[in-house]
Amino acid sequence: MNIFSRLVHKSRKWLRLPFLPNGGLGRGLGSVAIIGSGSWATAIAKVVVEHTHYIGWYLRSEEKIKAFEQHGHNPSYLTSTHFDVDEIDFSADINKIAKAFDTLIFVTPSPYLKDLLDQITVDLKGKTIITAIKGLVPGENLTCSEYFHQHFGLSYEQLALIGGPSHSEEVAMERLTYLTVGCANEQKAEEICKILRSDYIKAKTSSDVLGIEYAAVLKNVYAIVAGICAGLKYGDNFQAVLISNAMQEMERFLTTINPLSRTISDSVYMGDQLVTGYSSFSRNRTFGTMIGKGYSIKSAQVEMQMIAEGYYGTKCMYEINKEVQAEMPMLNAMYNILYNGADAKQEIKLLTDSFR
Amino acid sequence: MNIFSRLVHKSRKWLRLPFLPNGGLGRGLGSVAIIGSGSWATAIAKVVVEHTHYIGWYLRSEEKIKAFEQHGHNPSYLTSTHFDVDEIDFSADINKIAKAFDTLIFVTPSPYLKDLLDQITVDLKGKTIITAIKGLVPGENLTCSEYFHQHFGLSYEQLALIGGPSHSEEVAMERLTYLTVGCANEQKAEEICKILRSDYIKAKTSSDVLGIEYAAVLKNVYAIVAGICAGLKYGDNFQAVLISNAMQEMERFLTTINPLSRTISDSVYMGDQLVTGYSSFSRNRTFGTMIGKGYSIKSAQVEMQMIAEGYYGTKCMYEINKEVQAEMPMLNAMYNILYNGADAKQEIKLLTDSFR
Repeated sequence: MNIFSRLVHKSRKWLRLPFLPNGGLGRGLGSVAIIGSGSWATAIAKVVVEHTHYIGWYLRSEEKIKAFEQHGHNPSYLTSTHFDVDEIDFSADINKIAKAFDTLIFVTPSPYLKDLLDQITVDLKGKTIITAIKGLVPGENLTCSEYFHQHFGLSYEQLALIGGPSHSEEVAMERLTYLTVGCANEQKAEEICKILRSDYIKAKTSSDVLGIEYAAVLKNVYAIVAGICAGLKYGDNFQAVLISNAMQEMERFLTTINPLSRTISDSVYMGDQLVTGYSSFSRNRTFGTMIGKGYSIKSAQVEMQMIAEGYYGTKCMYEINKEVQAEMPMLNAMYNILYNGADAKQEIKLLTDSFR
Repeated sequence: MNIFSRLVHKSRKWLRLPFLPNGGLGRGLGSVAIIGSGSWATAIAKVVVEHTHYIGWYLRSEEKIKAFEQHGHNPSYLTSTHFDVDEIDFSADINKIAKAFDTLIFVTPSPYLKDLLDQITVDLKGKTIITAIKGLVPGENLTCSEYFHQHFGLSYEQLALIGGPSHSEEVAMERLTYLTVGCANEQKAEEICKILRSDYIKAKTSSDVLGIEYAAVLKNVYAIVAGICAGLKYGDNFQAVLISNAMQEMERFLTTINPLSRTISDSVYMGDQLVTGYSSFSRNRTFGTMIGKGYSIKSAQVEMQMIAEGYYGTKCMYEINKEVQAEMPMLNAMYNILYNGADAKQEIKLLTDSFR
C-alpha cells in the first residue's frame, strides 16, 4: 500500500463512508464487521477485507488487539495470514462495533454467543446479521437465526448465514472452497456472496437457512460417531456406511422440520459432513475416537482441553427431536453414550443393526 | 476338522449333493462356485464357504490351484486368509465348474470377463448367475447383467449382483461390511443374502440392478477425478465438494437411465463412492493422482503396472451417455483428459465452475 492510499485508509477509520471503495461489490451491505477471534473468524475476515478493504473487527481483549496490530496477524490463529491493519478498525467493545457497522458477521463459538449477545445494548434493527457459527444456542435449543429473530426482533430478511465445507486453514491457504449463503431474501444472499467470491472462494445462495443450520450441528454429532467407530477399530467399509446413514438420518430430520425440496448431496449438507466426518483434524472426530478407545467422556474432554461442539449439539438436537420425532438412531445412540453413561461399544453394536 | 467330517467332505468333492450341510441357508441356490482369483473373489469365497462348507472355485491356472492346495491360501491375494481346501473343488476348466454348480459367482476383472465367457460352451439356463464385478463389459458398453441376459439368454430373475462398499482386505479381516444384493427376483436376492450374512457381513436386497451396476462404474471414474485433484493440490474442502457433485451427477445419470425411486445416500451408491473416493489405496484414485502430478496417461499406466478400471469405465460411460444425454460434466472432463489429450489442470479448472 502506498503512502497516499494508506492516508486515505487511515482517515476512514471509524468514519462510516456511505460508499466504500470495494468496486461496488456488496454495496447494499454497507460497512462490514467481524465478531470473533478464532480461526474461522480470521479466515472470513481475510476473505471479506480483500473485497471491502475495510472492516471492523471485534476481538475479546485489548491485549489481543494490541498483539494483532503489532504483528499484523491474529496472535492465536492462522498466524501466517497477514492483514493490512490499516484496513481494520479493531475494538474489544461489542457495542462500539455493533453501532458503527451496518453488517455484522458473528463467528464466535456457539457456547459463548449468548453471553456476548447479552452485552449488546445497541439496537440491531436495520442491520444485516450474518452468522457463521456451526452450532445451536445452548440452553435455548434455538438455531442462531431463530435466536436473533426472537431476541432482537430481526426479520428473517435481514438474517443470513455462511455454510459449506470449509476448514479455515485451507481458506487461509487460498485453496478453492465453496461457501453457501443462506437467507430468506435472495437478493441479500447474493450481495453477501459478492463480498466472499474470489479466485479461491465460490459462493452460492440458498433459502434453506434452518436446514443448513441444523445440518451444521448434526454433522458434528455424526463426526463424533465416526470417531467412536474409528476408536473401536471399525474399518473404512463401515465408515462409508456410517456416513451414508448419517446423510439419510440428516435428511429425515431436515425433511420433518423444514419440508422443502432439497438435494441432500449438495455441498452445504453432504460436503460439510464429509469434510468433518473424514477429517482426522476434526475436534469432534478426535473426541469420539478417544471415547471409542475407552476414555471416559470427562477424561476425553480434559485431555482435549476443550469441549467438542458436537457434545452440546447432541443434547440440543436430542431435545429438539423429542418434539420433531424424526427417526434418529445415531443421535439417540450418541445421547445415550454422552449423557446416559451408556457403553459406547454396546450402543454402536446396536446402531449397526439399524444401518442399511 | 476331525477325520470323520474330513472324510464326508472328501467324499462330497465333485458330487452334487442335493442338500448341503449349510443349515438350510441359501438352499434354493444349490451348489455355489466362485469364478475369479483376485482379492475380491477370495474374500467372497471366504464369506460363502463359511456358510456352505463347500464351494467350487475356478482359478485360471493349474499352478495357482496347486499352490493354493499346498498352502491353504490364495498364493497371490489375501494370503493371510486360510481355507480348508477339503471344502473346495478347484478347477482351471471353466466349463467343468459351470456345468457342476448351480450358482456361479463371477468376480473377474471386467476387462477379462468377455474372453472368459467366450470359452463357456455349457448351457447356463437354469443357473443362477451372480456378478460381483465393478465394471462394464468393454467394447459392448453393456453392464454385466445385460451381457449375460443378451448373450446367454438368461432372464433377469436369475441374474443378481453383489454391491456395496467393500475393500476385500477388510472383509478378510472380518471387519463389519454391508453388502447389497441386487436382483429382479427379491426372493432370490434374499437367498443370496443368506449365504453372505455373518457376524461381520450385513446384507440387504435391492431391485435396482442396473443402477447399482452403473454406480459401481461411475464411482471409479469419480475416484480418478478425486485423485487428479489431489495431485493438483486441491484441498479437503474441495474434495468434499467434488464428491458431493459426483453424487449429484451419479443421481442424474441413474434417474435418466433407470427412473425409479432410489435413495442416493444408500450405502450401495454413496457408501461405495466414499470408500473408493476417499481411499488412498484405491487404484483409480492413485492413477488420477499421478495424472494430477503431471504424469502422462501412458506413463501413469506403466508406472502402476496395471490399468485402473475407471480408465475403461470412462470411455464406456461416455459412449453410453451420448445416448442417455444426462448432464455429466465430470465424466466429460475425464473423457477429455484420458482420451482427447486435454490438459488435466485446465479441464479441472473448467469443471470447478460447474460445481455447486
